[in-house]
Amino acid sequence: MQDPLITLTSDFGTREYYVAAVKGVILRVCPAARIVDITHDVASHDVLEGAFTLSCAYSSFPQRTIHLIVVDPDVGSARRALIVCTDDYWFIAPDNGVLSLVYAQEKVNRVISIQVEHYFRRPVSPTFHGRDIFAPVVGWLARGIDVGNFGPEIRDYSRLALPPLKRINERSCEGVVLHIDRFGNLITNASLQEIKECFGRDRSLSRVVIEGQAITRFYRFYAEASGDELFAIFGSSGRYEIAASKKSAARLLNAKRGSRVEMEFS
Amino acid sequence: MQDPLITLTSDFGTREYYVAAVKGVILRVCPAARIVDITHDVASHDVLEGAFTLSCAYSSFPQRTIHLIVVDPDVGSARRALIVCTDDYWFIAPDNGVLSLVYAQEKVNRVISIQVEHYFRRPVSPTFHGRDIFAPVVGWLARGIDVGNFGPEIRDYSRLALPPLKRINERSCEGVVLHIDRFGNLITNASLQEIKECFGRDRSLSRVVIEGQAITRFYRFYAEASGDELFAIFGSSGRYEIAASKKSAARLLNAKRGSRVEMEFS
Amino acid sequence: MQDPLITLTSDFGTREYYVAAVKGVILRVCPAARIVDITHDVASHDVLEGAFTLSCAYSSFPQRTIHLIVVDPDVGSARRALIVCTDDYWFIAPDNGVLSLVYAQEKVNRVISIQVEHYFRRPVSPTFHGRDIFAPVVGWLARGIDVGNFGPEIRDYSRLALPPLKRINERSCEGVVLHIDRFGNLITNASLQEIKECFGRDRSLSRVVIEGQAITRFYRFYAEASGDELFAIFGSSGRYEIAASKKSAARLLNAKRGSRVEMEFS
Repeated sequence: MQDPLITLTSDFGTREYYVAAVKGVILRVCPAARIVDITHDVASHDVLEGAFTLSCAYSSFPQRTIHLIVVDPDVGSARRALIVCTDDYWFIAPDNGVLSLVYAQEKVNRVISIQVEHYFRRPVSPTFHGRDIFAPVVGWLARGIDVGNFGPEIRDYSRLALPPLKRINERSCEGVVLHIDRFGNLITNASLQEIKECFGRDRSLSRVVIEGQAITRFYRFYAEASGDELFAIFGSSGRYEIAASKKSAARLLNAKRGSRVEMEFS
Repeated sequence: MQDPLITLTSDFGTREYYVAAVKGVILRVCPAARIVDITHDVASHDVLEGAFTLSCAYSSFPQRTIHLIVVDPDVGSARRALIVCTDDYWFIAPDNGVLSLVYAQEKVNRVISIQVEHYFRRPVSPTFHGRDIFAPVVGWLARGIDVGNFGPEIRDYSRLALPPLKRINERSCEGVVLHIDRFGNLITNASLQEIKECFGRDRSLSRVVIEGQAITRFYRFYAEASGDELFAIFGSSGRYEIAASKKSAARLLNAKRGSRVEMEFS
Repeated sequence: MQDPLITLTSDFGTREYYVAAVKGVILRVCPAARIVDITHDVASHDVLEGAFTLSCAYSSFPQRTIHLIVVDPDVGSARRALIVCTDDYWFIAPDNGVLSLVYAQEKVNRVISIQVEHYFRRPVSPTFHGRDIFAPVVGWLARGIDVGNFGPEIRDYSRLALPPLKRINERSCEGVVLHIDRFGNLITNASLQEIKECFGRDRSLSRVVIEGQAITRFYRFYAEASGDELFAIFGSSGRYEIAASKKSAARLLNAKRGSRVEMEFS
């Protein structure tokens, strides 16, 4: 039996002591824990970006991994703290919608509202639940405490209303830019599954219009492109992206997260 | 018995090979070591910032953790290298004051000046003691070599003169900004313990003046604030902070590390 | 027997999900793997910078470490993927020259072209071989699969033409700036070994001219310098560097990677 595996995602940055404090507390409770960072560079308080990054990474990890995500602008308020159980993983997070993409991608077996203070680090700082509530609960969970011990089951957990693909007609739909990566690639909400749900069958993308500009080139990998050209590509996160050869498509198009994307299919 | 646990704090950044070289050497000497980063983004040569970050993080870790901190502007000179033993931890660092906050917070049982070259990586680069002296010593310590083997005990180790709270009268004192975090929050030197030492008893903060601006709002957590307002808060590092709702208090106040902070108590 | 040790070097950055996906896949295949980051902040697509950083770090690690480097501008194209075996390590990388400095520093025993898809994660995204080809191959290698199982041996792997020292006369040679570190230090291609090969014997550097400016001061460590002065130093990477006291030598000299460096010896 392998030592328990835990991933961390947050907007703590890597310059301050926050991430280390979380890790230290986990290791105090569960010295055998192995901890892997997903990222701590989620934009500050950006729940949607945290949700997106976690959604792209979690399923690469082994079964029984515990995924902790702390993007928590309302820390200290009455917002709840959750343990979400799926067939393969546990997710620990504030109840602010940061798990919305997990809810969309996984069958949720059980959601627990963390309430049993016995497991918390004392005193609990109202500004740092990551260290004082989430970290020790993760540690105890990693040590094998059953989720039922941390609090009652709930069903009314928060979900962000994620923009679905909007079917326009037989041949086209409208999506949005979900995420802009550090290369300026625009990742849309058009996954194969979303496209299938929108049209009732698989479709092949043939044309994209974004910020008034039509894009008709499609490549399989980035190095196929050359010069300044904008193109569409099916990205590694399982969604269509708009990219530019060695430039930022976001800057070339002046596009933002939430920018509308018209898609035509052949 | 768990594998030895080691934390690293430095100003090496994460873009160069320095951090990896330190980890590699530790693992060559002690293959079972588990290594956790506190941060490598301490501002270059900023001994006080390193001291602050370490002081907020170290006590979250399990007993018997070895804490290595390398913020070492005088590397290669005659400055000494230290092993500091407390009840719970070992601290390894250059003798430049970077452990001053540890000395203030912990009972120091023993300080060793690292001198026995037998334990060093050879040849020793005069510009990278992190890799060639500190890392192998940490490795051997993690393997169980007694601290006494690394050199003689000393008592005249360096301490930074940390600014204490200055009592003005029965109801007020003057402190300073110790640290500005990445959100622009101003962390003062006013911990509960410092306040108690200054006034001989616990006091309740009622008003702060900094850079000519009076602050009278106090919140327990960040999300209580709204709009542009500046407020004081008791932070997770155990010190009073001045913050602004979703803005940088440092920028709003044009405050710097070392800025004076007048505090009134009720 | 220790758990297998793996290092990662890439240009993925730390903000996105890429690094975590690679780690997750490695851990799915080889749950016992221990993974250490060298850096993920190689400049995007900068094969030479990746080669330099890896070359400074790899030999600090224990024997039998597996070094994975993914700086892979041509991902998805027909460029090959390699396993390079030396006496002490395995290196896994795209065949684009990113291992050129390893080839220069190590005796290469065997190079395998990774072709056996049986070991890949399916489906393989043409934009993310790090996750879908390199990571699982690293995992299987860490589990003890013999390199011969991953594909045929090749000999025509790619090497960057690294600039050698050019002998001008008995007393001088011309080198180049290989790397500029985050402090603005200029690291040249003049290692002790290169100098010996250039002149047939050890020589002692006495004068450097770069960007029209002569440098005649030599220090052993950075803190020896003061004021604005530029100086030469034998750096921890085993190469001569041009540095400035607490300033960026790159900025003071307006020097770039590839800038010519004239060196005179006594």
